[in-house]
Amino acid sequence: MQSSTGTLPGAGAVERKPHPLDPLSPAEISQAAHVVQRSNDGVKIFFRAISLAEPPKKELTRFLHVEHSGSDTPAPEHPARRARVQAYVGQALHELLVNLDGETVEADDVLHGKHSYIDTDFMAQVAAACLADSQVQREIETLKLPDGATVVVEPWAYATDGMKDMKHRWTMAWFYMRLSEHADANYYAYPLDICAEVSNSLEVVEVYRLPPGQRDEIHGERREFDRRKIHSTSEYHPDLAREPRTTTKPYHVSQPEGPSFVVDGHHVSWEKWTMRVGFNYREGMTLHDVRLEGRSLFYRLSLSEMFVPYADPRCPYPRKAAFDLGNDGAGINANNLQLGCDCLGHIKYFDGWLSTSAGEPLKMPNVVCCHEVDDGILWKHTNFRTGNAVVTRSRVLVLQTIITVSNYEYIFLFYFQQDGSVFYEVRATGILSTAPIDVGERVPWGTVVAPGVLAPYHQHMFCLRIDPAIDGQRNSLVVEESHPIPLDNGPDDACNPFGVGYTTRSEIVPRESGLDLDFQTNRTFKMVNESVTNPTTGTPVGFKLVPHYSQLLLAHPTSWHSRRSEYASHAVWVTRHRDDELFPAGRFTMQSSGGQGIASWIRDRSGSPGDESSVRDEDIVVWHTFGSTHNPRIEDWPVMPCEKMVVGLKPVNFFRGNPALDVPVSTQERNRSVLALGS
Amino acid sequence: MQSSTGTLPGAGAVERKPHPLDPLSPAEISQAAHVVQRSNDGVKIFFRAISLAEPPKKELTRFLHVEHSGSDTPAPEHPARRARVQAYVGQALHELLVNLDGETVEADDVLHGKHSYIDTDFMAQVAAACLADSQVQREIETLKLPDGATVVVEPWAYATDGMKDMKHRWTMAWFYMRLSEHADANYYAYPLDICAEVSNSLEVVEVYRLPPGQRDEIHGERREFDRRKIHSTSEYHPDLAREPRTTTKPYHVSQPEGPSFVVDGHHVSWEKWTMRVGFNYREGMTLHDVRLEGRSLFYRLSLSEMFVPYADPRCPYPRKAAFDLGNDGAGINANNLQLGCDCLGHIKYFDGWLSTSAGEPLKMPNVVCCHEVDDGILWKHTNFRTGNAVVTRSRVLVLQTIITVSNYEYIFLFYFQQDGSVFYEVRATGILSTAPIDVGERVPWGTVVAPGVLAPYHQHMFCLRIDPAIDGQRNSLVVEESHPIPLDNGPDDACNPFGVGYTTRSEIVPRESGLDLDFQTNRTFKMVNESVTNPTTGTPVGFKLVPHYSQLLLAHPTSWHSRRSEYASHAVWVTRHRDDELFPAGRFTMQSSGGQGIASWIRDRSGSPGDESSVRDEDIVVWHTFGSTHNPRIEDWPVMPCEKMVVGLKPVNFFRGNPALDVPVSTQERNRSVLALGS
Repeated sequence: MQSSTGTLPGAGAVERKPHPLDPLSPAEISQAAHVVQRSNDGVKIFFRAISLAEPPKKELTRFLHVEHSGSDTPAPEHPARRARVQAYVGQALHELLVNLDGETVEADDVLHGKHSYIDTDFMAQVAAACLADSQVQREIETLKLPDGATVVVEPWAYATDGMKDMKHRWTMAWFYMRLSEHADANYYAYPLDICAEVSNSLEVVEVYRLPPGQRDEIHGERREFDRRKIHSTSEYHPDLAREPRTTTKPYHVSQPEGPSFVVDGHHVSWEKWTMRVGFNYREGMTLHDVRLEGRSLFYRLSLSEMFVPYADPRCPYPRKAAFDLGNDGAGINANNLQLGCDCLGHIKYFDGWLSTSAGEPLKMPNVVCCHEVDDGILWKHTNFRTGNAVVTRSRVLVLQTIITVSNYEYIFLFYFQQDGSVFYEVRATGILSTAPIDVGERVPWGTVVAPGVLAPYHQHMFCLRIDPAIDGQRNSLVVEESHPIPLDNGPDDACNPFGVGYTTRSEIVPRESGLDLDFQTNRTFKMVNESVTNPTTGTPVGFKLVPHYSQLLLAHPTSWHSRRSEYASHAVWVTRHRDDELFPAGRFTMQSSGGQGIASWIRDRSGSPGDESSVRDEDIVVWHTFGSTHNPRIEDWPVMPCEKMVVGLKPVNFFRGNPALDVPVSTQERNRSVLALGS
Repeated sequence: MQSSTGTLPGAGAVERKPHPLDPLSPAEISQAAHVVQRSNDGVKIFFRAISLAEPPKKELTRFLHVEHSGSDTPAPEHPARRARVQAYVGQALHELLVNLDGETVEADDVLHGKHSYIDTDFMAQVAAACLADSQVQREIETLKLPDGATVVVEPWAYATDGMKDMKHRWTMAWFYMRLSEHADANYYAYPLDICAEVSNSLEVVEVYRLPPGQRDEIHGERREFDRRKIHSTSEYHPDLAREPRTTTKPYHVSQPEGPSFVVDGHHVSWEKWTMRVGFNYREGMTLHDVRLEGRSLFYRLSLSEMFVPYADPRCPYPRKAAFDLGNDGAGINANNLQLGCDCLGHIKYFDGWLSTSAGEPLKMPNVVCCHEVDDGILWKHTNFRTGNAVVTRSRVLVLQTIITVSNYEYIFLFYFQQDGSVFYEVRATGILSTAPIDVGERVPWGTVVAPGVLAPYHQHMFCLRIDPAIDGQRNSLVVEESHPIPLDNGPDDACNPFGVGYTTRSEIVPRESGLDLDFQTNRTFKMVNESVTNPTTGTPVGFKLVPHYSQLLLAHPTSWHSRRSEYASHAVWVTRHRDDELFPAGRFTMQSSGGQGIASWIRDRSGSPGDESSVRDEDIVVWHTFGSTHNPRIEDWPVMPCEKMVVGLKPVNFFRGNPALDVPVSTQERNRSVLALGS
């Protein structure tokens, strides 16, 4: 790494050897671009993404083992720093692996038939091309829009529907109108019934009219924009919306001794937890090497994909189905979090570094925030014989990132608790994606939220990738259920004469597979280390998944939606770890046509020699698919209050007891609450 | 009411006419006792409970209607103030209805074969009787307990198992040992294998030895207490447990302008919400007349029962199954909440008033607390074209009560949100109820959490009673599911050629019934008012239940457990409102034998004339059964970190849009966050 210090344009001060999990520094991003440019001398290169290529797990595990073994161990060998670069080299999309230590291109794949993600620069070009197109102009003209109307074009990645040649990149442009001069007026309140199909070379290939009602029929004659649709209740911006309420009194969090966490670079330590925060263009925030009391729990935690298919069956709406990670990028679309707006108390922000199309480092300020919250009571007991209460409060470490993907916002939060549990929360907010509908019409796949405004039903399908390292890499997945003991003859001849007894039944999942939830049997998924037995309970140490119960994909198994989002057909998946399997709908989702996802990996290996699909006592990865069937309510309009989805990871016989037993007891001296007047 | 002011012993200052929903004042409690005593002149009366008899719904609805109609309406007629009194009149248990305005006994039921709840006074008597009993003393002697041991007796209500005559009240006494001189040493860490059965007249009828291992076999020879069971890791009290961590820095909530709520007596107003807080000996905190923006939402919200059956099939453990409301009382066992311990910020406490056995008012200080919390982001949108972010934070009103039922604590919280939703959360904490087990033994219905300490599997089955009044009393329950549109021919000839479309299917529940959850179809339960249509969506206004997915009762349908806890066999119930149907396992659960609960009500009415069981467009009540199958982890020991269960009630096309649209935008000026060092 020393070679990169200060030798390259844009290089910041690199004062120490980066940790192998540190995201690329600005200097490293420049260096990677430089190496790629040098190896393609004279060819125009359009960079799409330059991110850390995380070290192979084998190397990194060795490094981490030495790193955590104590100070008298010799300094570990650093795995080579590598960048994964996606770029158009000339006309062809490439993915290159650049060794930054040796300044060499180690691999260079031409991605035939694949497409890169869609970005705001390209979206702006598509919008401009549409507005300049004469056919579009004619269509807009026939609408006879009200005075002061500004047409707004919203380009979307084209969801594969089998109607176009997928070798080329297509973009769908949806049209809206802004009726106010205010630039933040809510144009989703005025969806227009125009839609354009745009080629990669920015030609408008076709202009559609959108259906006005339930039937898939288009008005033969273009009608004027219906003035009855003009309304004033769809604004959310404070300049435009109704007067704010004045009843909400200020609420401050004060931490007179500062936060309880310590951040060193990308390393976070808080209470007994340690972890490293990563960030890349696609997944956004990632967590690595998560430990508690020094014991290894998770090698890597990440949101691995999300898919938002819309339920409107009318042409061309089946083309609305977004892979918000694969097509857009959670890192690229991460918000710049603002002090006092996105969280309270003492806040540490992490910046992210991405790259420009010229390969220059691009700073993404404040993409991740780290702060603490109080979550009420952690544990309490009152000895009713003495009347003595002992109560502790739950302090929680929050790592938050927020992304904006056109209309929607997603807030992703990891919560670390003093009791050893981790929760992952998704909050969906922002604005519903809308479609036009004639006044007075209704359709059975959407909600009319304002005059002429249809909010179609849709699903949000997330997939949390959990790479467990429960006291080490070799783990197993146990499926446990609770069942009544038979009345006459239970397991081991247990009797149940009163009919009250129940026991658990456990099975270790033998092979890679997709599994489903069942709350009726209290089905529980435990990641265990069969080699480490809890000395008290006599059972393997483990962590359990506390799933979010939600409906899986509603699209037909034969549909493109379904074939493209393979992970959405089961709630829990277990696979053997492979370094290149991070994305359960496949590495390239833009106009993908299926066969690249987690079900395909499993199927392709299931008959393989060498037992590649065995997952018992192996280095496994567990994937949890969850989400929401979002049939909009009018209360989600014009901006949606957060819809929360929560997934948990909780220790099960991993520790020797409650890990939060030593949390200091709550006292008024410590917490300084105030009696409200009249109390 | 004037007649009661200042005329009775113990009367406090009653300065204004109480609201019909105000709990009984101390003066009214004394007055009720006085009336009962007077009407039973010379008979010894042992009071068990004196609580407000809420006015019949018909009367109260009329009152509330007038109350909310505006100030120029004539003052409404107050329904009579009435007390419901449970008392032993001589030897017989009675329930009396006392009209406080007229100072008359309006009803007097002798409760043949019913038993009152168990209380700490009686428990202390049972414990003393056990320790004084010679057979118990002999059994303890043979244990040869370590020096310094103190035997602790824990009496439990006897769960019906068909082995005893249920006409008499029985108590099971479980034995533990405290090894430290410290009065708060955790005696659950030393369960002894003795158990005694005690009669209502405090005779020890039988002493059992508890089984040492999986088989239902007792050691023929009493063995000494196994010294290998002595350990030091099971203490939770700060005087005895390990040193507290020092890493958790102080965290204060400051509200420089005070809280955003206004409390007037038992009336709470906060943001656009109003409600009344009730409190009684059995349900503890109740909520009444819950409105938002002046519109009626819920007539009454209450926890109606909870049942905690244990899974150990060995005799006599089937007798461990507690109805914590019906047998113990959530009000009676409510904690005295402490400033700075149980919540942060500005706190309003409500006192409760119960009664002594002499009929005197008994103050229960600080049984309910009211405060605000910040819950992160409420809604956010960034216009990606302008880069302008608008973000609001979610302020939440919390009403909290905590109960201690022997070993366990339950925290019950209502959360009111600015977006119109209400969440009900149960946090289970406290100490596991333990049983002895021989060192080295294991059983398939429990977890060994310390040497010799078995934490048996058990379930917690809660039932939230929701009495909706969605824009009025006449409501219907809609069950809605999301289903794919058939590929070839959907509803109303909808086509689905791309296989992506889905719609909802709704059915209105016609008759009283028990229903189940199904996340796989996104089954949603909506309480709607069919007479009020949302003008924009064109659908009836409603609120939906966001259920907590959990396993239902595992005990066999033929078991006493099952017959006694009728509500635990379905997750959602709908009934027609009846004033006397508040408790879905029946009014009297102590040693109940079934046939008194919600399934029986429904069955008994199902064939009745006059269509009594129709629930469409009627005054309905919705009941949600939820809970946890709690197979203890060692992390739940020696004191359990809170296990959260959350149920929601959310508006669905009730309002004209997001009710939180006017929440003021978050700014640093307003929220005063602090950049952590290094940021």
